[in-house]
Formats: sequence, structure tokens, C-alpha cells
Amino acid sequence: MEIDTYTCAFLESMTLATHPHETIEKQLEVELAQVQACFTQELTSDLQCVNTLVAHIERYRGKMLRPKLVLATSMACNSANAPLNHSHHVLATVVEMVHMATLVHDDILDDAQMRRRGYTVNHLDGNETAVMLGDYLISHAYHLCSSLERQTISRAIAQTTNTVCEGELFQLANRNNWSLDESTYFEIIRRKTASLCGICCQLAAKLCECDQHVVEDMYGYGENIGLAFQIVDDLLDLMGTEGTVGKTLGRDIGKGKLTLPMIRFLKVCDQASKPKLIEQLANQGITPLPELLEQLRNSVRSSGAADYAVMHARKLIDQAKSHLKGLPQSPARAMLETMSESVLTRTF
Amino acid sequence: MEIDTYTCAFLESMTLATHPHETIEKQLEVELAQVQACFTQELTSDLQCVNTLVAHIERYRGKMLRPKLVLATSMACNSANAPLNHSHHVLATVVEMVHMATLVHDDILDDAQMRRRGYTVNHLDGNETAVMLGDYLISHAYHLCSSLERQTISRAIAQTTNTVCEGELFQLANRNNWSLDESTYFEIIRRKTASLCGICCQLAAKLCECDQHVVEDMYGYGENIGLAFQIVDDLLDLMGTEGTVGKTLGRDIGKGKLTLPMIRFLKVCDQASKPKLIEQLANQGITPLPELLEQLRNSVRSSGAADYAVMHARKLIDQAKSHLKGLPQSPARAMLETMSESVLTRTF
Repeated sequence: MEIDTYTCAFLESMTLATHPHETIEKQLEVELAQVQACFTQELTSDLQCVNTLVAHIERYRGKMLRPKLVLATSMACNSANAPLNHSHHVLATVVEMVHMATLVHDDILDDAQMRRRGYTVNHLDGNETAVMLGDYLISHAYHLCSSLERQTISRAIAQTTNTVCEGELFQLANRNNWSLDESTYFEIIRRKTASLCGICCQLAAKLCECDQHVVEDMYGYGENIGLAFQIVDDLLDLMGTEGTVGKTLGRDIGKGKLTLPMIRFLKVCDQASKPKLIEQLANQGITPLPELLEQLRNSVRSSGAADYAVMHARKLIDQAKSHLKGLPQSPARAMLETMSESVLTRTF
Repeated sequence: MEIDTYTCAFLESMTLATHPHETIEKQLEVELAQVQACFTQELTSDLQCVNTLVAHIERYRGKMLRPKLVLATSMACNSANAPLNHSHHVLATVVEMVHMATLVHDDILDDAQMRRRGYTVNHLDGNETAVMLGDYLISHAYHLCSSLERQTISRAIAQTTNTVCEGELFQLANRNNWSLDESTYFEIIRRKTASLCGICCQLAAKLCECDQHVVEDMYGYGENIGLAFQIVDDLLDLMGTEGTVGKTLGRDIGKGKLTLPMIRFLKVCDQASKPKLIEQLANQGITPLPELLEQLRNSVRSSGAADYAVMHARKLIDQAKSHLKGLPQSPARAMLETMSESVLTRTF
């Protein structure tokens, strides 16, 4: 797997976080099980056709990064060390539902056939069903969220989904923009990915009645993790292998979507040969020829553009961790640090 | 226009409601202008690409049935005869946004090219943009709704959108089910269309602090209007002409979606020739041959199946009006009656 080589090479010189947090990690697992139960309960319908679809997309459940961010932040902010309450589980379930909805709709945008080693809904049941299933998920996310006592949580979640959609629309408007610059790329991923991760941690801190500066720091922690996560995701799409990543790859290039390693590569590559390369890529259609993709991967690798993207992600994770300084030392805080590191080492 | 002939023929023998409500209708227009302002304000983004898309879909705005239901019900329920307040406008804007989102996503489902005499977003900017724009609209609907003081309104709206999505998924699961029965058809349209119209009127009554039986009656009024509206909509898709209706027609047959006139026709037609007809229809693809469609329309017309659907809609409108009995006589109540009749006479 390509990305492994990069990330590992980079991380070799670093002190990797160890995992001494077995107890707190077990606690997180217990809390996550409650989130899964809440997820299934909320989505159950009296219509069998709906339940069948929901059962299918439950297979998509992967890293559960966003509910983990909610729960681990809550644990770290919960000064009383009390067990988490229903509100925390509801919030964690809501953000997972929002995320799942974006996955289902993203797969339509990407014409993706595979997700988590299974077929996508759009591939199995058509785009129409995928559109509606995504809508069903987002609707239930808001429905569940509005069961919370505080209307402000619903307002913040909806504000965030506004931003996520803006990010996606901004990205679509920049399709086939082969001169996309870094700052526009970062604006896109800040909206489409980082805003949701940021709000996970911010609202978790709010539910724990933290001071405003902690609430803001937690947003910063989540946002930086989200940015790094998206950079790695984009890197995997270009440099990964489908067997390991478990989903359709190479779609970004196929869809004319420039991401950080490509933006960097197009900046540092031989400028004389750039127009021809862009023409080649632009004419590929959504499934680029494997030979062209392989050639491109080699060029991106040898130009240092992939390392550049990993470095960026590394810096963002360091920034994320710096936002944790205001929290008291605890196993939960250490777990947040470990979680941020795992964004860099993930292979799928 | 085919549907005109049917509806008009049917209505000739009836006492049509006259329009003596000029003052109240002007008041409704003033309130609707506030809804339009709220709609535009809520959807404005700092991204130009988003504003361009929003400006495009504002062209879709047609009858504004759902905000009218909110506002007119509020006027009729408002015993103090006080002007409507911000909550009423917000609710009316929210339901219009939800409806617009379903239009944008429905056009993807239907591969529709035209809507309100303009090109659809999916036709102009691709399915991906249409998916995300619909998501942007639904997200803003919830965002705006969560600005209301009462969390229960958000909860009820989200519960309704859950139901709307179930209706759409149920309909998709019944694609190419050429033996779809009437009761399943009604269950589909009750969820996908009537539930939103019902909640418009129910929540309007709640905002006016009406008694529970009035709140329930208002749901019944809206729900029956929604059912009738959908029957007429389906009839227009089969029997209307694109020039008048202003959108792509014949899509229901093309997509294997049976609606009331077809369900009735397949029940009363010559059963021996039915399998051949179904085979013909099933093999048409999404754009049936104009000759086949014309032949089908003639058969549906002469079989009485179109009249049957109009009769059904007529009955539902009568039921809708019976739910108004508990309201005090007023120009606003008379306007609700007129509005229900207009569902039957609409030609687009």
C-alpha cells in the first residue's frame, strides 16, 4: 500500500504514541455500543424495504471517527468523571447519521461502486434509491437531534450541515479546474469535512458545561483532525490500492477533482509538459486508464508531492494536539492524542 | 389539455366556489412576500457558486401550496384576528424549502429535464450538483426551523420528512410492480405528499394555540388536500401536455411507476390483452414512444379510468372541507375552501 510507505517513513523518526489506555478504550467501546443501538433504533421503519436498505448501509460503518470524537471529547471534558449521559449518545449518533448520509450521497457524486469492501447503494439499487436513502438518514439525524432538550444543538448541527453542503457545492463548482490552488482546496475541505469534526468536539464540550475557551479549543482540535483526515483520504484515493482501502479509487482524478498531492505536483512538475498532462487527464473520463494512473502515481511520488501532503497532515495533527493543552491530564485526554495520531497512520 | 377536459366536465355540474375574498387574498399575498424574503435571506451564502444555484431554483417557485396552507390556516385559526407573527412566516418558509428540496431530488429520480418551463438543475449542472443543492435546501430548512422557540416544531417537521422519505423509498421499491394496488398507491402518496401538507396545517393551528381537536382537524384538511393534489399531479403526468404543465411528462410510465388512473385502467381493461400491454410498457425505457403514450391516453380516457381518478380527488377535497367545520366562519376559512377547490382545477 503506497500511503503506508509514506506515512510510515515519515513517522519512523517520530515518537509514536503508545496505547496504555486500555481501560478508557474499553469504556469508549461500551459507549460506542450504545451509539450503535441508538442508530439502529432511530432508523427502524414499519416498511420492510426501508429496513433492508438501512441494514445494508450499516455495513458501511467503519472507523466511527465522528462519534468517537464526541464520546472521547466528552470523557476528557467531563471533570466529574461521571458516565456519559443520553445526550452524549444522541449527539454521537446524530453526527454518525449525518456522516453516513454524506457517504451515501458522495458515492453518487463519485459514481463509486465499492465502499467498505461492499457494493454501494447507488450501484446495487440505483442513484434514485441512494438519493432517497441519504435523505432518510439526514432527516432522521435532525429528528433525533430535535429530541434533545437544547434547541441550540439542533441549530449548530444544521448550521454545520449548511457548511458541509457549501463545501461540496464549492468542490463541484471547481471540477475540472486544473489550476485549483491550495487555499481554495483548504477552504473546500474545511467546509465539507473539518466543520463536522469540529462541531463534534465543540458540542461535546458544551454538553459538559465547559468554559467557552475550552469549547473553542475543542472545535480547533476537531477541525484540525478533520482537515488532516481529508488530506489522508485524498492521498489514499490517489496513492492507495483498492484491496486495502476497500473502495473505488482514482475517482478524484477521473472527476477532475484536484487534491493536495496533485495541486502540489502540478506546481513543482516540469511546467513545459504540464499542459499535455492536464489534457490527458481531462480526457480520461471517470475511470482513468490504470497505466496513466500508475505513471501519475510514480511522478507524484518522485516529485515529493505525496510527502508534502503527509507533512501538511502531520502539522495539522500537531495543531490539533496543541488545542488539548487546556484540558486536565487524564486517560481520556491521552486517548484524544492517540486518536489524532491514528488519522495519519490509517490505511483505509 | 387533457386533464382540463376531465376536470371541467366533472365540475360543470357543481357549484364552483366564487372568489369574494379579495381582501383576505391580498393579506395572504403580503404574508407570502415575507416568506419569499425569508427564503432568500436564509439561503444566501458567501459563496457565489451557491447563490447562482439558489437563484436558479427560485425560478421553480410555483403555486406555493404549502406555505399558503400554513398562512391561510393560521389566518383562519387566529381567533384574535391579529397579524401573523414571525413564527408563522418561518414555518411557511421551512415547508417551502422542504418541498423545494424534494423537487430538486425528485427531478433526479425522474431524469426530468424541465420544471416550471425551465431546465432542471440535474439537466444543467448534473446529478451531483442537484443532489447537493437538495441537501443544502433541506439543511437550511432544519436550520431555519431550529431558530423557532419551540423544539416541538423541529421535531414534527423532521418526523414528517422521515415519512416523506419512506414514501419515496416505498415508491421506488414498487417500481415496475405492474400489479400495484390502490391501497399501496394511497399509502405511498399519503407518506410522500399528504404528510407534509397535513403538518403545514396542523402546526399552523398549533402556533395559534388552537384546541387539540382543531389541530387534528387541520391535519385532516391538509392531508386530504395533499392526497388530492398528488392524484391530480399523477393524472397530469399521464394525461397533460408539456406546454401547459411546464415539465417533462410521461415519466411515471417510463419509470414503471403506476399511479391511480393506470391502476384503475389495468383493473378494468381487457384482461386478455393486459400482459402484452404491460410487456410493451415495461420495455419502453424512461421516455416512452409518443405514439404508445397517445394510444395509452386514449385507452385510459375511454375506459373511464381518468374520470375515476378525478372522482377520487373530488371526494378527498370534500373530506378536506368537512374538516373545516369546527372553525368559525370567516373570510380566511372561506379562502381555505377555495384553495381546496383549486387543487382540482389546476392545470400545472
